Amino acid sequence: MEASRSDIEKETGRLEAFSDGVYAIAITLLVLELKVPQELSGPGLRHALAGQWPDYAAFLVSFATIGIMWINHHRLFTLVRRVDHLLLVLNLFLLLGVTVVPFPTSLVSRYLGHDGERLAALVYAGWYVVIAIAFNVLWRYMSSAARKPALLRVPPDSPEVRAIHGQFAFGPPLYALAFVAAFWSAVASLAICGGLALLFLTPPRTLPAGR
Amino acid sequence: MEASRSDIEKETGRLEAFSDGVYAIAITLLVLELKVPQELSGPGLRHALAGQWPDYAAFLVSFATIGIMWINHHRLFTLVRRVDHLLLVLNLFLLLGVTVVPFPTSLVSRYLGHDGERLAALVYAGWYVVIAIAFNVLWRYMSSAARKPALLRVPPDSPEVRAIHGQFAFGPPLYALAFVAAFWSAVASLAICGGLALLFLTPPRTLPAGR
Amino acid sequence: MEASRSDIEKETGRLEAFSDGVYAIAITLLVLELKVPQELSGPGLRHALAGQWPDYAAFLVSFATIGIMWINHHRLFTLVRRVDHLLLVLNLFLLLGVTVVPFPTSLVSRYLGHDGERLAALVYAGWYVVIAIAFNVLWRYMSSAARKPALLRVPPDSPEVRAIHGQFAFGPPLYALAFVAAFWSAVASLAICGGLALLFLTPPRTLPAGR
Amino acid sequence: MEASRSDIEKETGRLEAFSDGVYAIAITLLVLELKVPQELSGPGLRHALAGQWPDYAAFLVSFATIGIMWINHHRLFTLVRRVDHLLLVLNLFLLLGVTVVPFPTSLVSRYLGHDGERLAALVYAGWYVVIAIAFNVLWRYMSSAARKPALLRVPPDSPEVRAIHGQFAFGPPLYALAFVAAFWSAVASLAICGGLALLFLTPPRTLPAGR
Repeated sequence: MEASRSDIEKETGRLEAFSDGVYAIAITLLVLELKVPQELSGPGLRHALAGQWPDYAAFLVSFATIGIMWINHHRLFTLVRRVDHLLLVLNLFLLLGVTVVPFPTSLVSRYLGHDGERLAALVYAGWYVVIAIAFNVLWRYMSSAARKPALLRVPPDSPEVRAIHGQFAFGPPLYALAFVAAFWSAVASLAICGGLALLFLTPPRTLPAGR
Repeated sequence: MEASRSDIEKETGRLEAFSDGVYAIAITLLVLELKVPQELSGPGLRHALAGQWPDYAAFLVSFATIGIMWINHHRLFTLVRRVDHLLLVLNLFLLLGVTVVPFPTSLVSRYLGHDGERLAALVYAGWYVVIAIAFNVLWRYMSSAARKPALLRVPPDSPEVRAIHGQFAFGPPLYALAFVAAFWSAVASLAICGGLALLFLTPPRTLPAGR
Repeated sequence: MEASRSDIEKETGRLEAFSDGVYAIAITLLVLELKVPQELSGPGLRHALAGQWPDYAAFLVSFATIGIMWINHHRLFTLVRRVDHLLLVLNLFLLLGVTVVPFPTSLVSRYLGHDGERLAALVYAGWYVVIAIAFNVLWRYMSSAARKPALLRVPPDSPEVRAIHGQFAFGPPLYALAFVAAFWSAVASLAICGGLALLFLTPPRTLPAGR
Repeated sequence: MEASRSDIEKETGRLEAFSDGVYAIAITLLVLELKVPQELSGPGLRHALAGQWPDYAAFLVSFATIGIMWINHHRLFTLVRRVDHLLLVLNLFLLLGVTVVPFPTSLVSRYLGHDGERLAALVYAGWYVVIAIAFNVLWRYMSSAARKPALLRVPPDSPEVRAIHGQFAFGPPLYALAFVAAFWSAVASLAICGGLALLFLTPPRTLPAGR
């Protein structure tokens, strides 16, 4: 018996609603890291606010990165035709990655410009390597030609699928670069993460599509 | 090949779900700024609660402002027919603005009635200028006649579009007024922001529609 | 020109999504009031956890109350056919009420069993009076026979509408009772609020329907 | 008069949206338990981060458990055809269980490795027993043959229903095992909870289906 179109949309719709909720909350909780300076005079407040640049930098990079991850998640699921149990589980692993982001963000906010900043940046960029891998695992499973019936509603060799393959393959090595850079400089590592967010903000068709 | 009506609704639907999540969380996180006074006797508690008026004022203005922004977002997207990559990115910038609101709110709560209140109000009103500009950029892009096929499902010269053009054009200069007022008085600046929220709460057709 | 059925559902759907988000977040933020006791030995921990009964009581009453309010909101909107600007604004006022609930909850948690507990209970029950009034205002507007075309998809004299009228009319006076009780006893006031949540948990048709 | 298919989907859809919101927020609030160590040198930070293993362990077990509960909730509601008042109330009890999870998680994070760890683990595992029972109560009600018209869209003796019966029946005794284990060892209790999450992550058809 074939499930109706409407049942299938409800099925993927709820996975998307849960995922959207997790993304929306993780991206909004980042603001809790922006602390109001306490007990200061007027000029002291100006200096204190300016001195919080690591907080703002870490906030912006994390916001942009989670935002990009949401756009990518959205793109993947516009191609999905049906959902199975393992897809739910792999998506949960990806959401674990997204959910944790406020913690390394907070670590970088706190330690940038202090002793321990390189360790903080290692954790931060390293976590993005983990998420990039989780994205690739999810996508490889979704687009696998071995699944019958297919989870995607486009064939595995369609241009959309190949474009995403091409773009996603860059994620883990590029974040690994940010990870390695953190052994030398925390600021450089964070800047690479920020640059990657900007890069992935550009539409996918302008990136090499793996052919 | 034309995407079906149902695909398009799913597409915009998910952008709306993510945006609704961010708005709902940002507006609800504001309550975390309302702190319970500690270690006080009965009469002391009454004074302490009454003395927190800056917290309540900042909470109410921010709640009303985010609420209005949600209603406006909702209005814009009832006109949307399809979503493209740049629209997702511009919407993300707008959500960045919304997400951050609890931080300047907290700043105003903390400093209103103290040294540094004008700087706090400058940051607060200045941030609303940024959001008002982000709204205009998003809307100009959405309603641009140059996009083919159009992102809106009504023509660029329809009354709905012109009414929104007219209303939105007022946002940045009016919030700039609140920003400038903060150089003289933090309370006046906050009052202007509150007044603008009330103004935008009135239905759009009662505002000048730009003709 | 008549809006299509699908447009209308999208319209009310998004209002519901935003409202569901606010309810879900407000109800979940309550858990942040449950604090883990610090720096205690094993037996000390047991006493400390048991000594937090005001936290648990306030949490449960607030959880049940927000839950009931969500069920009622859900019931109202199953009857809605279309949404207008003032309905969005009145709904926003109701959500303001819901969003704030963690603050008086926290106040009761902190002061129950201490000096100031009656003031805390006054604020708590008083806030529920405000929300009950906001619910009635929203509902009167939704069900008004004066709105053309009607916002509801059932006639103003249908049994569903009259049943809700009957149930909602009880809200403000009953919460006012809890408010008045707080002048004598904070525990009694909180118990009344809890009892009202249980009462409203029973299906509506078992309550007097106003005829 | 029969409600249309579209009305029914809207009805269950909103219950799912609210539930998804609560699950998404509860699972994301867990990250607030991961605290950034303060005021430490570089090597001190490494030790401090490594010394937070109870936080990471409790976070992972709770994340996996809430994630599994969401997948199970999702599975149940794919079978639902209509919603009644008592189903809303029973679902609210289940969500109460989910919402509270960050509190026992925080308790375990704080006390694992210290005096009081067994009490913390008792509360933690005991709470999962409560949730498992709430799941069974909700499911028994949903799948009851006595409800006319049926809440499910499959008959009470269908394979899907029997498979879920079989799987859910294991929940309370297995979490009770983790509860009992906490009298001897907090770590063993937490490990059992983690193992159960992994077990329930496997697709349902690989578990005994009660025949």
